[in-house]
Amino acid sequence: MSKKEQKFVTHITSQEEDFSQWYTDVIIKADLVDYSPVKGFMVIKPYGYAIWENIQRELDDRFKATGHKNAYFPLLIPESLLRKEEEHVEGFAPEVAWVTHGGNEKLAEPLVIRPTSETIICSMYAKWIQSYRDLPLLYNQWCNVVRWEKSTRPFLRTSEFLWQEGHTAHATKEEAQEETLKMLEVYREFAYNVLAIPVITGQKTEKEKFAGALYTYTIEALMQDGKALQAGTSHNLAQHFAKVFDIQYLDRDGQLKYVWQTSWGVSTRLIGGIIMVHGDERGLVLPPKVAPIQVVIVPVAMHKQGVLDKAYEIYDRLKKVGIRVELDDRDTQSPGWKFNEWELKGVPIRLEIGPRDIENNQVVLVRRDNLDKVFVSMNELEEKTLDIINEVQRGLLDKALKMREDRTTFARDIEAFKKGIDKGFVKAMWCGSRECEDKIKDMTGATTRCIPFKEEQIDDKCICCGGNAKHMVYFAKAY
Amino acid sequence: MSKKEQKFVTHITSQEEDFSQWYTDVIIKADLVDYSPVKGFMVIKPYGYAIWENIQRELDDRFKATGHKNAYFPLLIPESLLRKEEEHVEGFAPEVAWVTHGGNEKLAEPLVIRPTSETIICSMYAKWIQSYRDLPLLYNQWCNVVRWEKSTRPFLRTSEFLWQEGHTAHATKEEAQEETLKMLEVYREFAYNVLAIPVITGQKTEKEKFAGALYTYTIEALMQDGKALQAGTSHNLAQHFAKVFDIQYLDRDGQLKYVWQTSWGVSTRLIGGIIMVHGDERGLVLPPKVAPIQVVIVPVAMHKQGVLDKAYEIYDRLKKVGIRVELDDRDTQSPGWKFNEWELKGVPIRLEIGPRDIENNQVVLVRRDNLDKVFVSMNELEEKTLDIINEVQRGLLDKALKMREDRTTFARDIEAFKKGIDKGFVKAMWCGSRECEDKIKDMTGATTRCIPFKEEQIDDKCICCGGNAKHMVYFAKAY
Repeated sequence: MSKKEQKFVTHITSQEEDFSQWYTDVIIKADLVDYSPVKGFMVIKPYGYAIWENIQRELDDRFKATGHKNAYFPLLIPESLLRKEEEHVEGFAPEVAWVTHGGNEKLAEPLVIRPTSETIICSMYAKWIQSYRDLPLLYNQWCNVVRWEKSTRPFLRTSEFLWQEGHTAHATKEEAQEETLKMLEVYREFAYNVLAIPVITGQKTEKEKFAGALYTYTIEALMQDGKALQAGTSHNLAQHFAKVFDIQYLDRDGQLKYVWQTSWGVSTRLIGGIIMVHGDERGLVLPPKVAPIQVVIVPVAMHKQGVLDKAYEIYDRLKKVGIRVELDDRDTQSPGWKFNEWELKGVPIRLEIGPRDIENNQVVLVRRDNLDKVFVSMNELEEKTLDIINEVQRGLLDKALKMREDRTTFARDIEAFKKGIDKGFVKAMWCGSRECEDKIKDMTGATTRCIPFKEEQIDDKCICCGGNAKHMVYFAKAY
Repeated sequence: MSKKEQKFVTHITSQEEDFSQWYTDVIIKADLVDYSPVKGFMVIKPYGYAIWENIQRELDDRFKATGHKNAYFPLLIPESLLRKEEEHVEGFAPEVAWVTHGGNEKLAEPLVIRPTSETIICSMYAKWIQSYRDLPLLYNQWCNVVRWEKSTRPFLRTSEFLWQEGHTAHATKEEAQEETLKMLEVYREFAYNVLAIPVITGQKTEKEKFAGALYTYTIEALMQDGKALQAGTSHNLAQHFAKVFDIQYLDRDGQLKYVWQTSWGVSTRLIGGIIMVHGDERGLVLPPKVAPIQVVIVPVAMHKQGVLDKAYEIYDRLKKVGIRVELDDRDTQSPGWKFNEWELKGVPIRLEIGPRDIENNQVVLVRRDNLDKVFVSMNELEEKTLDIINEVQRGLLDKALKMREDRTTFARDIEAFKKGIDKGFVKAMWCGSRECEDKIKDMTGATTRCIPFKEEQIDDKCICCGGNAKHMVYFAKAY
């Protein structure tokens, strides 16, 4: 027996027993990632990378539809550039990797591997932007970044990750704010419709905002263990970088003015979110829109005459209508073994075809989200399969919405807060002070996730100090 | 006036006067790249990056159609891994960037930024490959790599570049060789049909092969200045890496055996090739299959009633049939100015529409490759435009083929060799010795580009030493 076969029958830790171990079991056993020889760096295996490719395609289409273009900026940033914006360097300098030697020689100036690219990009924008006609400048890049993390988990926090970072420059404050919120909405809609993750949107507090931003907005997802995952951020950088990098444009009125900027990003972390929102005791559950394989065909009694031929016919028909389909014609495993494996790998729909089905001119579809069996006539194969793919997508979203609702409470006192925070989001009032924010974290382990756009008036008083409440905040323990 | 307007009217150096300066003028003025604050690192601007995206899509489809899957491996490689394969470390150690500190701490073991990923990938394959059932393993990755170069030129040789690197493992020597040649053929067909570059294919000499390979195969393109560009390589790694990384599989016969491996890659260097094969005195000339914009619509007498409406109608109709089309409706520039700019940027077809054309129910198409004007009836707009796009693609290939033929000579003595080498490829006989290879380089500046699959019997004697000829070789000066 090959290693693969031996591996499969091993146990996945149950979610209730140990959610964290369940996560690790799933990512390894579903063959999404592996640990690499460099501590904190992961290898993304083909099945995991294919999810990322689908995410990229969906997002890239949205970026282009909103007028953005892709570019590519250097991996390495001179120390002096990184140090230009004060808050930015304070935030990032402690966690960068330093390149000190190149081609056997010590470098005159050390370089950092980009932890994010504001500084190198701003140095170019200063050169490119001259006139109001050059604005808005709407660029994005898909790349790798490195942040030296002490404690890492595949997808959620790794020393290297893949992401996209949008960087835009605008003539006015209003346009920059509009862009910041537009891209947040792109992320929200994408999370909702593609990942089937109903995220909360809102603004980060001063403490939690991006190093160098005026305002940071976020999409926050709730995991099945009650912890929140910051799944994407969009920053209004105001003129912070423009002033230190001297990015000025000649306006219509003949005046030289600083531009207003934004940046926004999502990363391979989203894959961690998909796993922890939708996964179950059998393993991974993938939303059809990002699943590398949407339908897997498992022939039953494969060596009976006509079965494999019919399976290939079905494969061709589904492929022709654009479904990502795979036919598992391995003769080394039984159908039951295959069922288990494809469930572990989260394939949204299993299609079974055997001699009796052929007799009845039908196939059997089994939904991964609820294990429902559906008999579909061969005459309606494409249409019904497409329908059920959409139903699974919708089913996962509904389930995730319900999960989030069940796990969201509000609190007027710290006892209720503590009780709620183990379940998930707690909505509570806050006076706006850093002191209370820190104290709540010390007492409960929870951080402010965001101030939502529509605040509810839960109370008049700050849940911590009892002073005048300024905001309703979503609190949670977070990844 | 904005900087852009001022920039445009500046002069492009003529190819004959100074090809190298022409190249630099074109890449900067056509807005493909810019120099970055880090020496040897370039910024790929949106217009240049869009060419890369089209290259990626075309290649990725071909890789997937031949059974390959994408994955992602870490950027950083521990020094000890890099040092495992002797030839490999000799070849690459002198040109790597070293990461010595992470997160304010000195690393216990220095890491190199990948110059290529054989070593880190092999360390994983040793873990993943257990049984003959795990073979063949056919993975590819799209990523950035860093090689510390002393002398750099955008696209052609930069300290960081983007590329894909395929890494495969096979059960037998024959399968590995088959894969090596299959991927070379994928590159050749892609260069020919997509880039309109008729490359020469063949094997590298021992001196010129990849550090760690048994055999290296190459696609070699000829530029309009008579220099060759190595445009892609495919390596048969034999068991060199398998043995030092201990990549063994249990075969059907119960024996543990080392795998046979290949690797193959092409990079953003291809964009340099496109520029130097097809460009002309007016600037860039892009093959339609990789052009970010295939058709640019320039309205004439734009403010006359109906012109802009008609232009938008044409835009919609061409977009609907999948043509990458742009409408230049800027009112800050004259049509003549726009003609020049889009010619500089190499857009394959310019579509002019003005009041008289509307009267005649026609548009004017101007081909970038030969400046031919074609009048097309609005009734046949889509069909004829698609035809002409194909004709431009074909026209560029024919032109490049003729250029290569004109610049390829053969030589039986060193005088003829020297004369031919200033024009382009020289086919000549070689005894197979490293001494002669080095001597020819010293005397003429030319290197062996490849031993083609079909050698011609030009002579019996080595062109250098007069000894028995072993091979016919393509020689050229090279980038």
